[in-house]
Amino acid sequence: MEVKYARRMMGETKSEISDILALTGKPEIISFAGGLPAPELFPVEDMRKSANKVFDEQGAVALQYSSAQGFEKFRQQIADRMNEKQNTNLTCDEILITSGSQQLLEFSAKIFIDEGDIILCESPTYLGALNAFNGYGPKYIEVETDEDGMNMEALEKILATTDRVKMIYVIPDFQNPTGRTWPLEKRKKFVELITKYKVVAIEDNPYGELRYEGEFLPSIKSLDKEGYVVYLGTFSKILCPGYRLGWACADKEILAKYIKCKEDADLQTSTISQLEVSQYIEDFDLDAHVVKIRQLYKKRRDLMIKTIEEEFPKGVTWTHPEGGLFMWVTVPDYINTTEMMKKCIENNVAYVPGVAFYPGRTRSDSFRLNYSNMDEERIVEGIKRIAAVIKSQMK
Amino acid sequence: MEVKYARRMMGETKSEISDILALTGKPEIISFAGGLPAPELFPVEDMRKSANKVFDEQGAVALQYSSAQGFEKFRQQIADRMNEKQNTNLTCDEILITSGSQQLLEFSAKIFIDEGDIILCESPTYLGALNAFNGYGPKYIEVETDEDGMNMEALEKILATTDRVKMIYVIPDFQNPTGRTWPLEKRKKFVELITKYKVVAIEDNPYGELRYEGEFLPSIKSLDKEGYVVYLGTFSKILCPGYRLGWACADKEILAKYIKCKEDADLQTSTISQLEVSQYIEDFDLDAHVVKIRQLYKKRRDLMIKTIEEEFPKGVTWTHPEGGLFMWVTVPDYINTTEMMKKCIENNVAYVPGVAFYPGRTRSDSFRLNYSNMDEERIVEGIKRIAAVIKSQMK
Repeated sequence: MEVKYARRMMGETKSEISDILALTGKPEIISFAGGLPAPELFPVEDMRKSANKVFDEQGAVALQYSSAQGFEKFRQQIADRMNEKQNTNLTCDEILITSGSQQLLEFSAKIFIDEGDIILCESPTYLGALNAFNGYGPKYIEVETDEDGMNMEALEKILATTDRVKMIYVIPDFQNPTGRTWPLEKRKKFVELITKYKVVAIEDNPYGELRYEGEFLPSIKSLDKEGYVVYLGTFSKILCPGYRLGWACADKEILAKYIKCKEDADLQTSTISQLEVSQYIEDFDLDAHVVKIRQLYKKRRDLMIKTIEEEFPKGVTWTHPEGGLFMWVTVPDYINTTEMMKKCIENNVAYVPGVAFYPGRTRSDSFRLNYSNMDEERIVEGIKRIAAVIKSQMK
Repeated sequence: MEVKYARRMMGETKSEISDILALTGKPEIISFAGGLPAPELFPVEDMRKSANKVFDEQGAVALQYSSAQGFEKFRQQIADRMNEKQNTNLTCDEILITSGSQQLLEFSAKIFIDEGDIILCESPTYLGALNAFNGYGPKYIEVETDEDGMNMEALEKILATTDRVKMIYVIPDFQNPTGRTWPLEKRKKFVELITKYKVVAIEDNPYGELRYEGEFLPSIKSLDKEGYVVYLGTFSKILCPGYRLGWACADKEILAKYIKCKEDADLQTSTISQLEVSQYIEDFDLDAHVVKIRQLYKKRRDLMIKTIEEEFPKGVTWTHPEGGLFMWVTVPDYINTTEMMKKCIENNVAYVPGVAFYPGRTRSDSFRLNYSNMDEERIVEGIKRIAAVIKSQMK
């Protein structure tokens, strides 16, 4: 067999770290490498009741094809929730249901990026977004990022001097991988800049509701009066990921392109998944469920930070996420965390090496830790193991 | 707002016939335009039992993330079924689960097509495939198609003289839109040609199990010894479309590219959908269910053909599909079926105008009729209405 692929598929199908990450699945390894929600909180019985009600009342509808944009009632529930939580003013016509928000990352690149166009992003940024974008041949400019998110002076300098910036990708709340959150002033400035330079921004907000301390901040979408912000939401972190349900909120002109992408990509999102989650929202208390998630993850975050404070040596720094699933650790720059990962695996503990989150592969002195899917005992033991490996690498 | 899209998204988001088709949803219209399975056959109670068993036995697993390729047990069930029905010899490692087979059409273009590369297809061919492919900038060459499928002499002539043919898209069983089926000799010759010219073929087979007369024929995949055929299957027509479950069977090297696409596009197919349909296959008799579908659709096909024979005027021809969901009607070439559709809508009946199924928009003297989702009385009445409109257009 001798097959000619498109240029975009010529590279390796596996990333440089996928071989390492493949090892983290072994049961003896305490893995902070994933990004999974805690399954013990999934509302299995409530979802079962919702499913049975759907089978009772609209079984044949649930098993049939449905529209590309998604059920109107479900879109209205999402719009109502968005307007309540995210300070937006959306109608159901400005919402598209997708197979998780990952699908919207891929659509975003398909809609805005010709080969060689530029995507601006935080540095570091979400690995899965880079994978979704890469198929469309973008160039990346990593915008300098402070402890409180993207640096607005750096952003304006780039926007003022660079052609072909087609899209800015940001995660302003509890960013993946760093856990950082943008303050209000930064959000306002950002909207001012994208409006001035007429550039679309993708606001990816999977974790916004999972705040453990401090005040909720308005979404960037809620500050945007012109329509340059496309907001991506998901049920994966506030309910469960198994149904694969996400949504986009966008100006209708832009949303029409996303709907076209959806139709071409897979016709529509699962009919029965939409109806079951819609039923759950109607019959149960999603807000109360989110409170439970916050309580558990806060406990785990607190314990991870406390253990790190006790165990990690001087010269190592880490973020203090006010919410979300991740924190970010930086070691002295003579330590390569991809190399160090091999030692960690030998000691049955794992993280994601930081290099993967930089489009330019520019830094390898950091790593990402997940605390949402790990019991307390293993958090303490795992952090101790990483601490011992770091100490063995310190000069 | 002033937004710059990628070139691929510059065109209209709606096709030339979407305005017409939008009208077919009105309740007073007898629409043969859709391609929906008959919902009265959906096994709602059996699916409910399967869902409850999944909630009982693996609720938390069902609601969690799972792998990009899909559950091994489910892939094994599909491999076993393929090997039994399609005469293949597949392992579960050669199968990828996707959100319907439409998703695999989009992946196929992403994997094989650089802008300007050539896709060969039957003429006419499935509209939804063209939509999925178009985002990657292919050129199409429509291969001359006989009453029994793609003309192999025409195909060889094109393969022998044309550079940059990267992919051949075919539906050998009960084709959409024509209902035509390729005989065994044609299948063998096709595999010989793609092997000789080293070109990948996408065998799209959503309807293969829905045969109402004649012998089942081996899939092209089963005749392919080198691995040039990628086979696309779906549960949409043999069980129900609401779960959005399809699958690809391909050589492992090629499948790795599809798995990469899946991961980038939406991470994975719905966990709970996979488990529920897997449970259904384990606990119930999918084959017996398919028999019921065949019986009902055969009755509807027979009635549609009989009514057409009685009502349509001389000079009009139609296909006699041995299975599947569609038949194809050709009128004298001075009648434009897109124009005629307006008259049909006025008379409360609808079809899909044929021009949409030709990539080059080369012919407009045909239309597609669907008979799977229409009761007997309305089939007779609808065909009579179309017949009256055709007669009014005849010279």
